[in-house]
Amino acid sequence: MADIENCDLKSLSPLQLFEKVTEQGEKVRALKAGKAPKDEIDAAVRMLLSLKLSYKTATGQDYQAGLPPRDLASINNGTKEEDDDLVDPWTVQTSNAKGVDYDKLIVRFGSSKIDTDLINRIERATGQKPHRFLRRGIFFSHRDMDQVLHAYENKKSFYLYTGRGPSSQAMHVGHLIPFIFTKWLQEVFDVPLVIQLTDDEKYLWKDLTTEKAYEYAIENVKDIIACGFDINKTFIFSDLDYLGTSTGFYKNIVRVQKHVTFNQVKGIFGFTDSDCIGKIGFPAIQAAPSFSSSFPQIFNGKENIQCLIPCAIDQDPYFRMTRDVAPRIGLLKPALMHSVFFPALQGAQTKMSASDPNSSIFLTDSPKQIKTKINKHAFSGGRDTIEEHRKYGGNCDVDVSFMYLTFFLEDDDRLEQLKQAYTSGELLTGELKKVLIETLQPLVAAHQERRKQVTDEMVKQFMTPRKLAFEF
Amino acid sequence: MADIENCDLKSLSPLQLFEKVTEQGEKVRALKAGKAPKDEIDAAVRMLLSLKLSYKTATGQDYQAGLPPRDLASINNGTKEEDDDLVDPWTVQTSNAKGVDYDKLIVRFGSSKIDTDLINRIERATGQKPHRFLRRGIFFSHRDMDQVLHAYENKKSFYLYTGRGPSSQAMHVGHLIPFIFTKWLQEVFDVPLVIQLTDDEKYLWKDLTTEKAYEYAIENVKDIIACGFDINKTFIFSDLDYLGTSTGFYKNIVRVQKHVTFNQVKGIFGFTDSDCIGKIGFPAIQAAPSFSSSFPQIFNGKENIQCLIPCAIDQDPYFRMTRDVAPRIGLLKPALMHSVFFPALQGAQTKMSASDPNSSIFLTDSPKQIKTKINKHAFSGGRDTIEEHRKYGGNCDVDVSFMYLTFFLEDDDRLEQLKQAYTSGELLTGELKKVLIETLQPLVAAHQERRKQVTDEMVKQFMTPRKLAFEF
Repeated sequence: MADIENCDLKSLSPLQLFEKVTEQGEKVRALKAGKAPKDEIDAAVRMLLSLKLSYKTATGQDYQAGLPPRDLASINNGTKEEDDDLVDPWTVQTSNAKGVDYDKLIVRFGSSKIDTDLINRIERATGQKPHRFLRRGIFFSHRDMDQVLHAYENKKSFYLYTGRGPSSQAMHVGHLIPFIFTKWLQEVFDVPLVIQLTDDEKYLWKDLTTEKAYEYAIENVKDIIACGFDINKTFIFSDLDYLGTSTGFYKNIVRVQKHVTFNQVKGIFGFTDSDCIGKIGFPAIQAAPSFSSSFPQIFNGKENIQCLIPCAIDQDPYFRMTRDVAPRIGLLKPALMHSVFFPALQGAQTKMSASDPNSSIFLTDSPKQIKTKINKHAFSGGRDTIEEHRKYGGNCDVDVSFMYLTFFLEDDDRLEQLKQAYTSGELLTGELKKVLIETLQPLVAAHQERRKQVTDEMVKQFMTPRKLAFEF
Repeated sequence: MADIENCDLKSLSPLQLFEKVTEQGEKVRALKAGKAPKDEIDAAVRMLLSLKLSYKTATGQDYQAGLPPRDLASINNGTKEEDDDLVDPWTVQTSNAKGVDYDKLIVRFGSSKIDTDLINRIERATGQKPHRFLRRGIFFSHRDMDQVLHAYENKKSFYLYTGRGPSSQAMHVGHLIPFIFTKWLQEVFDVPLVIQLTDDEKYLWKDLTTEKAYEYAIENVKDIIACGFDINKTFIFSDLDYLGTSTGFYKNIVRVQKHVTFNQVKGIFGFTDSDCIGKIGFPAIQAAPSFSSSFPQIFNGKENIQCLIPCAIDQDPYFRMTRDVAPRIGLLKPALMHSVFFPALQGAQTKMSASDPNSSIFLTDSPKQIKTKINKHAFSGGRDTIEEHRKYGGNCDVDVSFMYLTFFLEDDDRLEQLKQAYTSGELLTGELKKVLIETLQPLVAAHQERRKQVTDEMVKQFMTPRKLAFEF
């Protein structure tokens, strides 16, 4: 792009420098292959060396062909190390029964750990006890939260942005994690929130019509509303719908799309030449809600309000891209808080799938279904016989019932007691499962009750672009 | 894409078959390279042969690697023959002083010639004398006009769609060609019209802000209105503006984007991996106005009204792509009428450029500027000396003043007289230029006068999405 060509090397992001080195390397090879005059080749080589030096200065790393810089490192198959977990927006795979190695992921993604200091600071800033997802490391990683808190402590607020790809009508309890946490953030920080339903993404990736994708979105919106968001401070939108009603959204999309190349989305998302151009352009559509100017009606035309995105760690590639582009289009980088994955009933090796009804507890399940599924499918860390279990104890690190309890059981003391009793062998697998069943049954039933009370009128109100009750 | 994978080979377009053969070929090579089991390789080869047969049945041509089927043949450097002209949306190049070889282009693009039969049929259908652009072969090529006329003769109407990329404030007389012709079509067929200003395209391709691109669009809209379009039957829109106010436009864009791969736009438009994802997705934005459902307010929600696109031939790649996709998303293929290029003052080898003030007559030029430019820059087909000119005569085929007169002088007899007098040597170059000056000066002055009368209120009215005065 012309605007990259003409600017000073120092103003380039690490990824842009990486691309320039790659391009120059290709040029040198082409010149050599084409037996170009020696002085021409020499000049190109000198330029290549100089670019490599700029790259090293900017990143602290040597340039390695095919390996983009750390901050935007590719996380697809192509570049992951042998023993690394595979984590991207479409796949989560690990060979470890305990699940993905999150400390390693923090290093690979270049994010920061949510440590005790940060949690204490959130407690001081809000005057509220930290959410169990923070206390238990379920939201474990972040980007720029120090900055967000510093501003907040100095009376400068922010807005929240989260979302969902509406792939089928039924949501499972794992889908609730970002919403439960976002609702808590909205309450304790008292901030507005936008929620994106990427029905266009689902249309592009799945064998669906636009109408069906939108229908799924609306069904999902009802479940989201049932989480209890503040109607005066929350705007929920479907891309297929909102893009055609906002004067700011498309402008930000096209701005992002101007500043991201196919090479970049290929590296970040693993797209190929056979992918449709809709997929290739889509990352900009997930990026744009990170900028308040995408919502002129919502924020009363106020641009460049800080954005904080709570999401599962697999969505981070979209926002690393967004953060790379933001300063180049004169906009603020969004801050992030990342959650771990919610394990499938069958074990922590994979993310749950909405397409396998036995892989999780769905928000539509009856108390009986919940009981049967947990008893039948929840992977156990217990021993093969009662005798062995009493003798050696169970393994909470791989026991899915225990993992689910860390997500949903509010009482820290009770959770600790269960852990000790299970580990010592005092508590049997069946007894642990019973605790989980008794925790999830009322939780799901209450959700169903709240969902029943969600009217079409409420859906319409949440989804109407309007000024939210907040002054920045 | 899943929806291609799963469907029957017979339902695939030639281009999709082409892609399937290419993919299968790559698979066979990969299997061989990876020393896969013999039976696996054999099965893949059998599949390849069967795909090649389907391709030949569908296209009548043998599959050739890197050469897409004729109907969507690439027209960029990569595949053009040695002596072919280069014609794509960004470049027009020919080594012939007479300009591009249009008969060859019709064969290469797979369109049809606008012949006397078709022109007579238009005359019968409308009861109007054919426009000079038809009489003189300036609109020379078409797709599906027989179908459009057949429907029209049976009382089934259509709508017109044309557009402009607003790259700078000033338009030149060549930019008027599609608008002059479209206005005539609107009048004689009595049909509604939509005009797209691709300010997003200009933002993506040029070093511009979105604000500046939109500003150019509005300036251009004033010139377009000054052409005399019927305010009750014409909707003019900027992409940056309209995308955020239409409930139908984005849905059609994303539908097209789902059905076009990067491989395809690479073949059609010559995009590379270093291009930004905005450019890669853009062809769908120029495609979408070909479908009436992109304009729910304009056509009162009526879907699948036939569209006719008058445009310069360099825009055809966009609409070949559109026509390839349309049946796969259940929509009608747009029909087309193609014009030749308007030559630069300096000669017919290139298209005019709005960035070189001496390459054409601008709509802002004064009578004096018009006179000076034509006298100084218009490439002459006359002889070196008066004596030689009188003896051998001038060459109208390469004389730019004569070419311009074929565009702008309404009187057929006068034009024929000028041709004979110039060819015989009776008329000197200076005298021919004088005729052109006297033709263009009042034309440009009248345009300027009409443009002055275009108010902001009129711009707003033309650009407001509203039901047009027409019932389908």
